[in-house]
Amino acid sequence: MENALNLDTVLLSDDEKAVVILDQTLLPNECKFLKLDKAEDVWDAIYKLRVRGAPAIGVCGAYAYFVLADQFQTDDMDAFVKKCTEIMEYINSSRPTAVNLSWALNRMHAVLMAEKDKLSVADMKVRLKKEAHAIREEDVQISRNIGQYGFELLEKLGKGVGIMTHCNAGTLATAKYGTALAPMYIALENGWDGKKDLHVYCDETRPLLQGARLSAYEMQAAGIDTYVQCDNMASYTMKSGKVGIIFVGCDRVAANGDFANKIGTSGVAIMAKHYGIPFYVCAPSSTIDMTMESGDEIHIEQRKPEEVTEMWYEKRMAPEGVGVVNPAFDVTDHSLVTGIITEKGIAYAPFKESFEKMGIKPVEKFVDKK
Amino acid sequence: MENALNLDTVLLSDDEKAVVILDQTLLPNECKFLKLDKAEDVWDAIYKLRVRGAPAIGVCGAYAYFVLADQFQTDDMDAFVKKCTEIMEYINSSRPTAVNLSWALNRMHAVLMAEKDKLSVADMKVRLKKEAHAIREEDVQISRNIGQYGFELLEKLGKGVGIMTHCNAGTLATAKYGTALAPMYIALENGWDGKKDLHVYCDETRPLLQGARLSAYEMQAAGIDTYVQCDNMASYTMKSGKVGIIFVGCDRVAANGDFANKIGTSGVAIMAKHYGIPFYVCAPSSTIDMTMESGDEIHIEQRKPEEVTEMWYEKRMAPEGVGVVNPAFDVTDHSLVTGIITEKGIAYAPFKESFEKMGIKPVEKFVDKK
Repeated sequence: MENALNLDTVLLSDDEKAVVILDQTLLPNECKFLKLDKAEDVWDAIYKLRVRGAPAIGVCGAYAYFVLADQFQTDDMDAFVKKCTEIMEYINSSRPTAVNLSWALNRMHAVLMAEKDKLSVADMKVRLKKEAHAIREEDVQISRNIGQYGFELLEKLGKGVGIMTHCNAGTLATAKYGTALAPMYIALENGWDGKKDLHVYCDETRPLLQGARLSAYEMQAAGIDTYVQCDNMASYTMKSGKVGIIFVGCDRVAANGDFANKIGTSGVAIMAKHYGIPFYVCAPSSTIDMTMESGDEIHIEQRKPEEVTEMWYEKRMAPEGVGVVNPAFDVTDHSLVTGIITEKGIAYAPFKESFEKMGIKPVEKFVDKK
Repeated sequence: MENALNLDTVLLSDDEKAVVILDQTLLPNECKFLKLDKAEDVWDAIYKLRVRGAPAIGVCGAYAYFVLADQFQTDDMDAFVKKCTEIMEYINSSRPTAVNLSWALNRMHAVLMAEKDKLSVADMKVRLKKEAHAIREEDVQISRNIGQYGFELLEKLGKGVGIMTHCNAGTLATAKYGTALAPMYIALENGWDGKKDLHVYCDETRPLLQGARLSAYEMQAAGIDTYVQCDNMASYTMKSGKVGIIFVGCDRVAANGDFANKIGTSGVAIMAKHYGIPFYVCAPSSTIDMTMESGDEIHIEQRKPEEVTEMWYEKRMAPEGVGVVNPAFDVTDHSLVTGIITEKGIAYAPFKESFEKMGIKPVEKFVDKK
């Protein structure tokens, strides 16, 4: 098995004509890369979670913005801007809940709007490529910082600690290191023994099993003692006393600390509070949306019933015609959160003040203002 | 689709030579009955959950005791008693956590021991058949009573109530009506409209999906507005305000009200408490083990990893060699329980006193004393 830290989740192709992604729907059985150079293919890859994880989607969105804009042959900047706006809006529609996607697209678009009167279309294309690369490189550094702050928490708990996580917020979800799994990679870099010093419990994370397929894959690949459990076993494992800390990722954090993450996260948080286990959210500051007062404003994507009743199965495993609940995310109340780990430090309640002290400000939005 | 209330989960065959069970591992796609007349086949059917649900397993165990004893050709009562003891111990080993199995086997065996000096082997076989039939018939009445008490709770909440359940404690898990699903059948018998007055949310219940396959099947078959959700969506649905009450079954209740039920139940109870939703356990008094002070004494069966990593799937969905957590049950603390509905009434905290007032006493045990 390849070491997941050597896997590049999202890159620009060598010829700079396509976005290259690792197709995560095929893991853990197959490690296949896809070259995407059509808008529909990018949209589909994001929607179908071939590339997933908020930061990785953001990097993918930025590269896609460049690749698709680069294909448009014109010398007319007004026409180019119109095309780029279409690209941005179309790609953004593939995952409405993931703020990183619109954040990255907005950042690309802001470069365009700020410099469109100074540059030719040809020079602008070079400028956009540079910006997309910068978004990727910054993401690596952000993950590393989050991992460092998380590792300091692990150090306080001591070697041999058990860590529980939900879904996948690992190196596969970002450019490198991940968010919720980054502390374990930093622990390894600091000489911790993966088999003895770290024990990671991965919720399988129905319906799409990102925990079983992805988190377990990359933690095991990194040489860490790794366990898979069905989502409904989290309470059992917490009660057993084996879990010292919980790290989860997030897709969007409101100013008050409420946050949206993969469906099931709020249940994990409620159980963690019941059992007195520290519960930390790992959140790049790009994920924090200071324009939202609370999680009540977060739009929750509803996905198709077949993901629950059929996908992964040879036969239906629920009766035909039955109703299905299938939200992609849920919102966890800030009262359940011990701390929110960003690349700028760990925020504690009251979160809004803590975020403001870190210098996190409302992001200027092009897409969401519509 | 057949109405599940017309399905007989466990019966004695017409020729009285075999136990006939509905193979529940094939639902909801196929409705197939199996005739079991070998000890190994009975053991396997119980272990593989072809017949499942504590009361149904009890009825199956009682019929199996009769069928297998009936095959033993002897006139020597001592040899017959020895054989019956072997049968009892062997069948009991198939599901160590389900108290109903040992309860039913013990009851059959108690008849044997009490009357072995008065009857011939031939007459004893007739006597054992009668006892097995009585166990089934009493189970129908027990479920009906539990349903009636549960229905009174639904009436207080009013028509249109949302009910959440975990795993399957329905008609498929008993001789008829079920325990946790019995209140909805009684509601229908009282003229409630299944589509308008009842909305049932079924946790799919990984790894074996009894909620999606069985509870959703029988609730939908009965004409009730039914929804399937992944286990990790329970928090989302509870938060939405759609759930007025939660009914779950149980496999074993300790004297203090702690109880073992399908893995994930304790998490549902913790979330219900967090959201302030009443949480009721539906428990035939045979499930209440007054010899156990608390749930700490309940033995939790650990099952094979492949149920989590492979079963139902064409390919592995977790990496080879990864650790797996796979307990079949968990124990829910009595502090999370609103009430325990038995056929004798609803017990409230302190549960031990409440049970004693109902006349529930420690059961004399042959098997567990060993």
